[in-house]
Amino acid sequence: MLTLFVLNLLLHFAMQASSPLDQVFQYIDDHQDDYIQHLKEWIAIQSESGNPTKRHEVIQMIQTLGKTINRLGGSVELTELGKEQLPNGKMIPLPPVVLGELGKDPNKTTVCIYGHVDVQPARIEDGWVTDPYVLTEKDGNLYGRGSSDDKGPVLAWLHAIEAFQALKQELPVNLKFIFEGMEESGSRGLDELLRQKNDTFFSNVDYIVISDSGWLSKKPALTYGTRGLCDFFVEVQCANQDLHSGLYGGSVHEAMTDLIALLDSLVNSTGHILIPGINADVAPLTDEELHLYEAIEFNLEYFKHTIGTTELLHKTKEDVLLHRWRFPSLSIHGIEGAFSGPGSKTVIPAKVTGKFSIRLVPNMDPEKLSNQVTTYLNRVFEERGSPNKLRITLQSGSKAWVTDVRDKQYDAGRRAIRKVFGVEAEMIREGGSIPVARTLQHTTQRSVIMLPICGSDDAIHSQNEKLSRGNYINGTKLFAAYLDEISQL
Amino acid sequence: MLTLFVLNLLLHFAMQASSPLDQVFQYIDDHQDDYIQHLKEWIAIQSESGNPTKRHEVIQMIQTLGKTINRLGGSVELTELGKEQLPNGKMIPLPPVVLGELGKDPNKTTVCIYGHVDVQPARIEDGWVTDPYVLTEKDGNLYGRGSSDDKGPVLAWLHAIEAFQALKQELPVNLKFIFEGMEESGSRGLDELLRQKNDTFFSNVDYIVISDSGWLSKKPALTYGTRGLCDFFVEVQCANQDLHSGLYGGSVHEAMTDLIALLDSLVNSTGHILIPGINADVAPLTDEELHLYEAIEFNLEYFKHTIGTTELLHKTKEDVLLHRWRFPSLSIHGIEGAFSGPGSKTVIPAKVTGKFSIRLVPNMDPEKLSNQVTTYLNRVFEERGSPNKLRITLQSGSKAWVTDVRDKQYDAGRRAIRKVFGVEAEMIREGGSIPVARTLQHTTQRSVIMLPICGSDDAIHSQNEKLSRGNYINGTKLFAAYLDEISQL
Repeated sequence: MLTLFVLNLLLHFAMQASSPLDQVFQYIDDHQDDYIQHLKEWIAIQSESGNPTKRHEVIQMIQTLGKTINRLGGSVELTELGKEQLPNGKMIPLPPVVLGELGKDPNKTTVCIYGHVDVQPARIEDGWVTDPYVLTEKDGNLYGRGSSDDKGPVLAWLHAIEAFQALKQELPVNLKFIFEGMEESGSRGLDELLRQKNDTFFSNVDYIVISDSGWLSKKPALTYGTRGLCDFFVEVQCANQDLHSGLYGGSVHEAMTDLIALLDSLVNSTGHILIPGINADVAPLTDEELHLYEAIEFNLEYFKHTIGTTELLHKTKEDVLLHRWRFPSLSIHGIEGAFSGPGSKTVIPAKVTGKFSIRLVPNMDPEKLSNQVTTYLNRVFEERGSPNKLRITLQSGSKAWVTDVRDKQYDAGRRAIRKVFGVEAEMIREGGSIPVARTLQHTTQRSVIMLPICGSDDAIHSQNEKLSRGNYINGTKLFAAYLDEISQL
Repeated sequence: MLTLFVLNLLLHFAMQASSPLDQVFQYIDDHQDDYIQHLKEWIAIQSESGNPTKRHEVIQMIQTLGKTINRLGGSVELTELGKEQLPNGKMIPLPPVVLGELGKDPNKTTVCIYGHVDVQPARIEDGWVTDPYVLTEKDGNLYGRGSSDDKGPVLAWLHAIEAFQALKQELPVNLKFIFEGMEESGSRGLDELLRQKNDTFFSNVDYIVISDSGWLSKKPALTYGTRGLCDFFVEVQCANQDLHSGLYGGSVHEAMTDLIALLDSLVNSTGHILIPGINADVAPLTDEELHLYEAIEFNLEYFKHTIGTTELLHKTKEDVLLHRWRFPSLSIHGIEGAFSGPGSKTVIPAKVTGKFSIRLVPNMDPEKLSNQVTTYLNRVFEERGSPNKLRITLQSGSKAWVTDVRDKQYDAGRRAIRKVFGVEAEMIREGGSIPVARTLQHTTQRSVIMLPICGSDDAIHSQNEKLSRGNYINGTKLFAAYLDEISQL
């Protein structure tokens, strides 16, 4: 009797120690190599949305994703968005959007997950150590284009769901999925689709979660804001065709000289944007906000080290973070039409296009900004007295997004982080632009959270993009914990 | 008797009307289609000296040229110049230089002809209307890369010689040839070779003639000066690798912002070079020189029209020509390492290299100029207080060349032009840099003339390079007439 009692007691404790969620965590730990293999298959698909010659691979990636959801028992609708016209006039199909659904229990909360499976261009010649399209593990990191942005996080969601199912545990929530293949190219057609589906697909959605960003440091984070983006082209033309700099140098108002002066008028050496009126639109910083920044753990020396610089534009942790997230910034990306190859070419380029962009914060407005930029550059150009042709165009514009950190979905996020990592979530914003956050919140009026699982040093959009094995696996656990927490709200 | 007398008289006049040189001219007129076919074969060889992947075609072109001289009965030595190291460390062979000789009569004058058979890169995607490597005749123009610079002129020399031979006329002079395949890439190794051959190959040379430039207008010209060239790279590095402009914008001293400011400090909107000290080195303009410019026929409106602009940097004919030939100019060619493709890329480039060059005039010195540029840019950079790494390098440097227009070789040139075209030669300079003119004159101490046959609108180094059929054929006649005139000096 006593033996049986002791055995029952032990069994009781063992059951307690191994809660259903702990079993999910254990299952995830046990299957990490499978998850990496799965990611490897996805990375091999070169789904570069900005590269028209790879459009079929984006479409293939969307189809692969749809089948993965089908295997989990979910239903999938591949929603066509029509065609895209290339600058040369050619029409190519836009990749369809995956609208998926898994579970329809009216007693459960419904969570909609957003992600994307297209990637930025990558070539080994750009300076990758390994083939960007062959996922390669080295020192605990998984290198490959899209590993962190955003194929890894999308797969982590699907693996979290699969873990519940494999253990025959009931999914704690109903799920909806919205996964796209044009995020890196302005999410063409998505806004319109979201508006169309607001009364149908989104009607029973309670919460929306986005995993398409990174932590600030090695500490898990919740993201409550992103900057917007306005993308400008400044084209100057001085001749019908390129000229020989020996034959024409000294006689022609060169387009490059004008363009360089225009670009040089945009921002000064301290990073201050020189376009009049822009800074007046930035929402004033409150004391409450500043306190949020003071609480953040952020090692400036490590940040400088990862960049490879000795000095930043600002001196304090708060100032650096504020200028990454809370204030606008301007970057000059390059020039199209000028000589860009190795070696020398003594050419006077006939038509050159400078590319720059401005990151927007509340309360900046893309249309107003575009007017400010155009007025200013036209004035700078006029003062030069150049006979050349100037054309300034706004390529795309999106507003910033900020939400209330006191939203209860954020409480669920904080609890999930505490459960998986044993630490308090860092409350951060994102310097990059993820316009879909704003659009989803604006259109559906639902609570939106950004729940990142990627590292701060994942080099997204750059050479040698990676996701650490640890973040991939713990991120999968975090998603499982989040689904569990959100079901209890 | 009377009939016979009349017949003899007629024959006498006919013989007079058809001098030996007139017969050469007639022969050239009768064979123009053959000459075009020959040029077509040469244009098909993509002898881009700046493109390492085409090096075998440059060598093939040199060999083809050597065989053409052999067929004229000339002897040819293909002089090896060793190897070239590419930026990636790989070694590739330099194309040999053709040293040729035709005729050794001690009673004749010896003329040495210089030319080159390599070309600037060309791709149909750059905006060519026809394939740059398929010579295509349209509206009296022969379009193709190298048609004008410099395969057409080199072939014109060889056809002029062939015409004398076909008519069984004795060549009026002994000939030497120096033809190279690296002119568009800094004539690597040529200076050293010229010095080595000064006491052998050049010992019995009386005159040197170069045909590697163009007329100023539709009027035939003799060129008595060229500008020099200093080619600069300005490299700025801000990070170990490219950064995402959303994640890092506002925190990093961007390399592009620094580089744009550096490039913007070089030249103002009126084309005035801002580097201190440069203009002080320019030889003062004499009244005698200015008179030379006043005499030149040059239509500013037509010049603007060919460029495709409404306004030049200077207002008068004299000022425009002086700034093309007689004063230095600075052109910014482009940036390596920044985004240069179509579309958008929100990148902060980690390492960018600005490419610019300065055209030198007497008495500017490349080494002194390089010091002035480096000192100035370092100061501009220092004033910005940027932590980034700056590296300024002079890639290549050559001085200007000017010779005395009263040289008797120029008299021969003027008479030849009068004979073929019935007009006075325009005395011009060249804004481009043909360093071999200076090197040949400096090394051999012989009289050097530049005898161009190409049009002012031939678009050399640009898209749709062409040589007109008229200039190709009349140029061949001019070369025959020049050989005839020079033999009489």
